[in-house]
Amino acid sequence: MTAKIIDGKRFAEDLRGRIADHVSRLKSEHGIIPGLAVVIVGEDPASQVYVSSKAKHTAAVGMNSFKHELPADTPEADLLALVHQLNADPTVHGILVQMPVPKHIDPNNVIEAIDPAKDVDCFTPANVGKVQIGLPGPVSCTPLGCLMLLRDELGSLEGKHAVIIGRSNLVGKPMMQLLLRDNCTVTVAHSRTKNLDEVVRQADIVVAAVGRPNMVKGDWIKPGATIIDVGINRMPAPEKGEGKTRLIGDVDFAAASEVAAAITPVPGGVGPMTIACLLANTITTASLMNGLTPPVDLTA
Amino acid sequence: MTAKIIDGKRFAEDLRGRIADHVSRLKSEHGIIPGLAVVIVGEDPASQVYVSSKAKHTAAVGMNSFKHELPADTPEADLLALVHQLNADPTVHGILVQMPVPKHIDPNNVIEAIDPAKDVDCFTPANVGKVQIGLPGPVSCTPLGCLMLLRDELGSLEGKHAVIIGRSNLVGKPMMQLLLRDNCTVTVAHSRTKNLDEVVRQADIVVAAVGRPNMVKGDWIKPGATIIDVGINRMPAPEKGEGKTRLIGDVDFAAASEVAAAITPVPGGVGPMTIACLLANTITTASLMNGLTPPVDLTA
Ligand SMILES: NC(=O)c1ccc[n+]([C@@H]2O[C@H](COP(=O)([O-])OP(=O)(O)OC[C@H]3O[C@@H](n4cnc5c(N)ncnc54)[C@H](OP(=O)(O)O)[C@@H]3O)[C@@H](O)[C@H]2O)c1
Ligand SMILES: NC(=O)c1ccc[n+]([C@@H]2O[C@H](COP(=O)([O-])OP(=O)(O)OC[C@H]3O[C@@H](n4cnc5c(N)ncnc54)[C@H](OP(=O)(O)O)[C@@H]3O)[C@@H](O)[C@H]2O)c1
Repeated sequence: MTAKIIDGKRFAEDLRGRIADHVSRLKSEHGIIPGLAVVIVGEDPASQVYVSSKAKHTAAVGMNSFKHELPADTPEADLLALVHQLNADPTVHGILVQMPVPKHIDPNNVIEAIDPAKDVDCFTPANVGKVQIGLPGPVSCTPLGCLMLLRDELGSLEGKHAVIIGRSNLVGKPMMQLLLRDNCTVTVAHSRTKNLDEVVRQADIVVAAVGRPNMVKGDWIKPGATIIDVGINRMPAPEKGEGKTRLIGDVDFAAASEVAAAITPVPGGVGPMTIACLLANTITTASLMNGLTPPVDLTA
Repeated sequence: MTAKIIDGKRFAEDLRGRIADHVSRLKSEHGIIPGLAVVIVGEDPASQVYVSSKAKHTAAVGMNSFKHELPADTPEADLLALVHQLNADPTVHGILVQMPVPKHIDPNNVIEAIDPAKDVDCFTPANVGKVQIGLPGPVSCTPLGCLMLLRDELGSLEGKHAVIIGRSNLVGKPMMQLLLRDNCTVTVAHSRTKNLDEVVRQADIVVAAVGRPNMVKGDWIKPGATIIDVGINRMPAPEKGEGKTRLIGDVDFAAASEVAAAITPVPGGVGPMTIACLLANTITTASLMNGLTPPVDLTA
C-alpha cells in the first residue's frame, strides 16, 4: 500500500478562502471587520518570519492586521501595558504575543494579561479549560488544524483509537481534548511511556508531536492508519549545497507511507494549517464578542 | 491472587488529620482561619445529606463553615448575588454551590460567577485550564482523591498505563490530566470505545467512572493491576429488608479481586475521599489567596 498524501497546503488555502468569505459576510451583514494584533518583542529571525507571515495572511483574508514590534529590552511592564491597551481596543478581536519572549519577561504574566475573549492562541487558562469543558471559544491552532485534516480525511472519528505522542501544552494536550470530543478513544504517550512501539501499533490515528526526526518507524504503524506528523525538525542537507538544511517530521515518512492509509508530509502537512487556524480563531472570537454564533466549519 | 483492599475511609481520616494540622499551622503562624461556604438551593434529600456532611467535616478540621440554604424557587439573580457577596468576603476561601441546582437556574452562570480563587470544586474554566497547564490551584475533588490513593498504593506512577473509563467533566477528564501529569501513559475510554475489554486489559491502573453496576468484568483486568472504582450505583437489596438498597461500584468486585493487586471497595473506597479533598482544596486556595505556597501533600 502507498499512503495517500494529505495536502495540508491545499487544505489551508481552501480554509483561508472560507475565512475570507466569513470576513466579507461579517462586514456586509454586521459591519464588523475582524482585527488581529500581533506583538513581537526582539529580533529573533524565526519569530520575525512567523510574524510577517501571520500579518500577510491576515491582510489577505480581508481582516485588519495590527503589528507591534518592540525592542528586545522592552520592560515587561511596557509589554503588559500594550496588551491592556489592545484588550481595550474594540477594533482588535485577536491578540497574539509571539513566543518566546526575551528572558527578562515572564511568559505566564503576558498570557495572564491577555483578555481570554481575544486570546486567539488559546493560551489562557480560561480558554484551555473551555476546550476541556466543551464551551465555545478559540482552540489551540495547531491541534485545530490537525483535527480539520483528520475530519476531512476520515469523516467521523467516532470509535477510532487515536494515539498522540507528546503531551505539550501547545500541541499534545489540546489535541487530546479535541480527539476525545470527536469521540475517539484517546491514548497520550510521552517520554516516560513504555513500549511506545506497541502502543502506537494499536492506533487508527497517530498524531506525532515530539520533535525527534524519524522517531516513529514504519513497523510501528497499523496497516491502514492515518498519520498526522506535527514534528518539524531542521536537518543538514549538504546535498542541497553547503550549509543548506531541510525539514523532516517525527515519522519515518518513506517507511510509514508503505503501511498507512494516509499521512501528512513535512513540510506541506500540518505546518500551513497553524496560521490558517489562527485566522479561523479570530473569526470565532470576533463572532463571540459580537454575540454571534461562530461558524461551525472554523472551529472544533 | 486476592487483591489488597484500598481503605479509602481510613486514608480520608488520615488526610483530614493532616488538614487539621495545616489549619492549626495557618492559624498560629499566619492568623488565617480557612473558611468554606456551601450554598444549597432547594430541598433535594441527597444534596441535603452531602451538604450537612461537608459542613460537619469542615468544622471538624477547625475551619470556618458557612452554610447558605436557599428555597427551591430562589431566582437565579439572587443566587448570583449571594455568590458575589461570598466572592467579596475575606473570611471565605472556598465557595461550593451544591449541584444540581433547580431547573430554572443555569449552572454555567453559577459556575462563571464564582471567583476562580475560591472555586474549591475546580469547576471554573480558568481552574480547569490551570490543571492542564500545570499551574497551582484547586483540583477536581474526586480525581484528586483517586490520585492520592494511587500514589499511596503504588508510589511513583511513572510509565504505568492508566485506562480511565468515562470522560465526564467531573471525573474522567480531570483524572486524565492528573495521571498524565504523574507520568502515566493515559488512555481515556467511553461509550463510543470499541473493544473496551481489550483496552482495559492493557491497564496497570484502571479508573472506572461510568455509573454502570459491575460493568467491568474480572477477565478485563490484567493480573496485578490497581483498580480505582469511582462508580456509585444504588441497587435494591431485598435481603436487607423490604425497600432497602445497597451501593455497588462499576467493577465486578468479587471477580476483579481475584486478579488485581489492589482495588477500592464501594462503599469505603473513593467515596470518602471527595469531601476530604474539598477541604484540602480549601487549604490550597486559602494559602494562595494569602501568598503562601500550598502544602504539597494536599494537592496534585
Ligand atoms: N506544524 C506546526 O505548526 C507546529 C506547531 C507546534 C509544534 N510543532 C513541532 O512539533 C514538535 C513538538 O512540538 P511541542 O511544542 O509539542 O514540543 P515539546 O514541548 O518539546 O514536547 C515534546 C513532547 O514529546 C515528548 N517526547 C520527547 N521525547 C520522546 C520520546 N523519545 N518518546 C516519546 N515522547 C517523547 C515529550 O515528553 P515529556 O513530556 O515526557 O518530556 C513531550 O511531551 C516539534 O518538532 C515542533 O517544532 C509544529
Ligand atoms: N465517589 C465519588 O465521590 C463520586 C463522585 C462523582 C461521581 N461518582 C460516580 O461515578 C460514576 C460516574 O460519574 P460521572 O459524573 O463521571 O458520570 P457521567 O457524567 O454520567 O459520565 C459517565 C461516563 O461513562 C461513559 N459510559 C457510559 N456508558 C458506558 C459504557 N457502556 N462503556 C464505556 N463508557 C461508558 C460515558 O461515555 P459518553 O461520554 O460517551 O457518554 C461518560 O463519559 C457515577 O456512578 C457517579 O455516581 C462518584
